[in-house]
Amino acid sequence: MADDQKIYRASTTAPVNIAVIKYWGKRDPTLNLPTNSSLSVTLSQADLRTHTTAACSASFPGPDSLVINGAPQDISGPRTQACLRLLREQRAALESSSSPAPLPSLSSFPLRIASVNNFPTAAGLASSAAGFAALVRAVADLYQLPASPAELSRIARQGSGSACRSLFGGYVAWERGGEGAAGGAEAGAGAGTGAGAEGAQARADDGSDSLATQVAPAGHWPDMRALILVVSADKKGVSSTAGMQATVATSELFATRAATLVPRRMAQMRAAILARDFDAFARLTMRDSNNFHATCLDTEPPIFYLNDVSRAAIRVVEDINKAVGRIVAAYTFDAGPNAVVYYLAENESLVAGTFKADMGSAAGWDTERGRAVQINGGAAIDRKSMSLVVKGVDRVILTGVGEGPISVTEHLIDENGKVVESET
Amino acid sequence: MADDQKIYRASTTAPVNIAVIKYWGKRDPTLNLPTNSSLSVTLSQADLRTHTTAACSASFPGPDSLVINGAPQDISGPRTQACLRLLREQRAALESSSSPAPLPSLSSFPLRIASVNNFPTAAGLASSAAGFAALVRAVADLYQLPASPAELSRIARQGSGSACRSLFGGYVAWERGGEGAAGGAEAGAGAGTGAGAEGAQARADDGSDSLATQVAPAGHWPDMRALILVVSADKKGVSSTAGMQATVATSELFATRAATLVPRRMAQMRAAILARDFDAFARLTMRDSNNFHATCLDTEPPIFYLNDVSRAAIRVVEDINKAVGRIVAAYTFDAGPNAVVYYLAENESLVAGTFKADMGSAAGWDTERGRAVQINGGAAIDRKSMSLVVKGVDRVILTGVGEGPISVTEHLIDENGKVVESET
Repeated sequence: MADDQKIYRASTTAPVNIAVIKYWGKRDPTLNLPTNSSLSVTLSQADLRTHTTAACSASFPGPDSLVINGAPQDISGPRTQACLRLLREQRAALESSSSPAPLPSLSSFPLRIASVNNFPTAAGLASSAAGFAALVRAVADLYQLPASPAELSRIARQGSGSACRSLFGGYVAWERGGEGAAGGAEAGAGAGTGAGAEGAQARADDGSDSLATQVAPAGHWPDMRALILVVSADKKGVSSTAGMQATVATSELFATRAATLVPRRMAQMRAAILARDFDAFARLTMRDSNNFHATCLDTEPPIFYLNDVSRAAIRVVEDINKAVGRIVAAYTFDAGPNAVVYYLAENESLVAGTFKADMGSAAGWDTERGRAVQINGGAAIDRKSMSLVVKGVDRVILTGVGEGPISVTEHLIDENGKVVESET
Repeated sequence: MADDQKIYRASTTAPVNIAVIKYWGKRDPTLNLPTNSSLSVTLSQADLRTHTTAACSASFPGPDSLVINGAPQDISGPRTQACLRLLREQRAALESSSSPAPLPSLSSFPLRIASVNNFPTAAGLASSAAGFAALVRAVADLYQLPASPAELSRIARQGSGSACRSLFGGYVAWERGGEGAAGGAEAGAGAGTGAGAEGAQARADDGSDSLATQVAPAGHWPDMRALILVVSADKKGVSSTAGMQATVATSELFATRAATLVPRRMAQMRAAILARDFDAFARLTMRDSNNFHATCLDTEPPIFYLNDVSRAAIRVVEDINKAVGRIVAAYTFDAGPNAVVYYLAENESLVAGTFKADMGSAAGWDTERGRAVQINGGAAIDRKSMSLVVKGVDRVILTGVGEGPISVTEHLIDENGKVVESET
């Protein structure tokens, strides 16, 4: 094959992450710089993942293209463009510095990217985080960039804020980063929680220090499990991008959250994870979820993501903890009604098993993890709340803490450059 | 009739009030001193009122008794006892200072009190406010105390915080009052909004300066209307007394509300009322309701008073305002799911008429006010939200700003001291 006909390919899978200290608010919408730091648990790719193949070739007709789950996407938006531009720049720099043997000029070739999720997009899960993480990782691998996951997280952040956290497995912090003209909320507070190596560069607020770092790998605390209750809802309400900007602009409580509460909680959450202290982890997780939704309610006009089913799920978790006599479960909610319930493997029957006792007919218990859950019918649960959960939840997803992006050899674009329809 | 057989009687009616700047949090639970000031609209007694007769006689067997809607009540609780003790003390002082003609020593006679509401208690309306205001006013009239409504509000406050506001008609502020050991949240801020005559006495924090004052009489802005959507709910959730203490103790956003937001909003709300500026009144009302409920959600464990029906009512109000192109309606929610929608009489068809168009079969439209509402079917309302409101609302109450307690000659205790079953 002539060199200008060669097709270069790289494939990766990337995980979903669910924050326990929530990201809400951009101090710079273009660079996707957050108003406050956040911290998440990366979930296992066995249950939730995006699989992406990036290919390029001088023989591809332009322009760049992206296919997700078989459907061609518009990639002219500034977010996708920013990611591709930054990756190309790094490749171009690599090409120009390579000598004596020149690298092929992949940076000038059209890109063809294909992506599939192993979970329904309609579930309202944060697919954009896994999606942008996989896209950035796959193109970086295609380009053979020497960039670290932290460096790539800076790029993925510009695609979708929370995507930067999906570049790592385990327990992951996204640092707010240095002060800028538009910032101010977390001034100085980051010093106690930051990665430590930010220094004077942070002052520029070019976003270079707003990146993800791993607090602890999955293996540090491998027993963390998550039960996701996928709540049936007609459609997503206010988008998170629009919602967070409205909150920053109008909530008079939000500044207290961003400036005072989150910096303190980031430090407390790091400590809880490092000490494998589930009680502290759970309390902080629930408080921060409620605090975030409180600032949504304080927005003008108010934003509601929790509905009666969400509230009922909270009540069931509270009742489980009361029945057990200690905190064995923690709920958290992103910008939607789905509940994510964290618990430790040793308490699986007490937590997942209590839900399964009443929700056995929901989709999701037929997975390998789901079948293994021992039904627990002993906890004293408010019947009305459980009944609302049973009626309002379409499916459950059983998962747990997992690894970061993984290079795979299974490609979604074949050796002729053709997008194959789906994963084998 | 011998003097020791004589039965003394006085009767009054008292109104309900619905706050537009919410009371939430006690800095002194015994004296019922609030963490922050509040402001309310007194509602018309033609629609919502408590009617109370207080009687006393040397011939009554002790102890004091209270019958509400025909059911004997336990009055040994500290709140009722505090009200009766303070009223007796004032009567006793009057008796001891009267000369040469001595007053009958009513303060030493057993009290017999009877009370009826013209609205169902189960409606979850703030019946305790009207109830304690009527009780205090009736006993004060029985004792012929020269106390002003403001002075009586101090006593009623100790029965139920918001009762102090029901001693006045129109637009009523309840001043937080001076600083005490347990206080601090609104330090200094009261100066801009206070009644002005508090002075050095305020420093004692004996509660003497935490009283209600009239911002403006009903006649100043008589066109204020209220549509109450009574949401069917199994039972009340967390009681307001327990809820507010939990919020003060655990919400990290509450201090910002109490120390900064409420003092500013009190001043803004006074100005809006004095200027009859409905746009400002409505914006502040909605923001403060949402802000209050946000601090409830930020409580540990979280407190939810709004449910999906409440949220749907908010959406309908938002859609009415959007359809009209200006703010003609304002929602507010107390510690429960019922929506109170304020609007001006001139916009009755736009606001109440839009609800009536879909909710015509709910109870409450058959009142004189309800029948007069012109149905408006022209506004563009989210159908799903309206459908939730239609399904979730049992009854509507149409009312408006009204007068304070009114002395009446219709007694609920007959001339023989017997409690008559109900109002004629």
